[in-house]
Amino acid sequence: MRDTYHEELEALSERLIEMTRLARHAIARATTALLDADLNAAQEVISGDEQINRLDDEIETSTFELMARQQPVAKDLRTVITSLHMAGDLERMGDHAVHIAKIARRRHPESAIPAELRSIVLEMGHQAELLVIKAGEVVNDRDADTARELDADDDRMDKLRRKLLKRILDPGWKHGVEATMDVTLAGRFYERFGDHAVHVADNLVYMVTGEKVDDHEREV
Amino acid sequence: MRDTYHEELEALSERLIEMTRLARHAIARATTALLDADLNAAQEVISGDEQINRLDDEIETSTFELMARQQPVAKDLRTVITSLHMAGDLERMGDHAVHIAKIARRRHPESAIPAELRSIVLEMGHQAELLVIKAGEVVNDRDADTARELDADDDRMDKLRRKLLKRILDPGWKHGVEATMDVTLAGRFYERFGDHAVHVADNLVYMVTGEKVDDHEREV
Repeated sequence: MRDTYHEELEALSERLIEMTRLARHAIARATTALLDADLNAAQEVISGDEQINRLDDEIETSTFELMARQQPVAKDLRTVITSLHMAGDLERMGDHAVHIAKIARRRHPESAIPAELRSIVLEMGHQAELLVIKAGEVVNDRDADTARELDADDDRMDKLRRKLLKRILDPGWKHGVEATMDVTLAGRFYERFGDHAVHVADNLVYMVTGEKVDDHEREV
Repeated sequence: MRDTYHEELEALSERLIEMTRLARHAIARATTALLDADLNAAQEVISGDEQINRLDDEIETSTFELMARQQPVAKDLRTVITSLHMAGDLERMGDHAVHIAKIARRRHPESAIPAELRSIVLEMGHQAELLVIKAGEVVNDRDADTARELDADDDRMDKLRRKLLKRILDPGWKHGVEATMDVTLAGRFYERFGDHAVHVADNLVYMVTGEKVDDHEREV
């Protein structure tokens, strides 16, 4: 029985890692959709979100069953509860990729991102990928030390977003209302994607060490 | 022991209801801050968020202890797990009120909302209050039937947001980039506040009936 139990805990972890892979693919394709006005990429992200949602549901169901059947305590209980939180964060990351893809779809065949902002948005996309890849690695390796780095990695994303907003507010900004809205929201969605990756890492720290990371300030 | 147990479950519910009260107060004051450029109201929302965060932490700690100590099954386990989810949603609702308050603070002494949009934003504020009050009621009454109404109530919020965006995209929109950004984000924050209230209600349905509400589509 105990073996099955630890196999089930292991399966939770594998599902989470699979979610990080899917979320990474989603944000990469969403960035392509946005920058290249690539409608196929946008549709792929939008329809692919179902797979992320299904994994979230599966994790929710199996944590519930695990708790009811095995009544884990201490570290095992932490593992189950944090897995539930991490799945929720990864599911939201998928949603943010979808939001970005929908901006791209709405503006197709034009690109929602004016030429002079392309490099910043590209960098935000890369930073988002880096964060979710690293989140997957720390979950895989149960590596609390590396997990603690994600908060600082995410500062880079926040800086990029501020840079983006500064460009919009610059007197030289000549684009219309629609571009202003799209860039404002896209910036917000990348930032939130990064925040959720940091939450995954915070939860991993708690899982491994039992030490809570205060993420309330960061959330706002 | 069992009595203490059910008292603890009851205490969870009371904390959640207290969170709905605080989230309601926060969004009401945030709307005042936004519409009247009321800096005191904005500060109150920003500093008051700590109280909501603390309740979220308390619920997290006590659900963990409850699970470790009492090892609930079936409906009690659902109560504990859904309480955790609901606390997370209510905590995010507090954050969205803070986001709105920060827009107001940034634009003070001016109002971030142009005069012709005040009535729509006021209505969004009222709708947000209505949703969180109703969420508190269904949690208090364990009323799954009324809880199912929140999704439709939230349609009103989505319509208001579309109306807001339509006004911004109208050729008659004469306001600057900053107003466009602020109104775009404020609209998003009210919409998300409403979404989280619906999640609270969805979780209540699951708690009472054991029947899952698929909220993935709604989230996006």
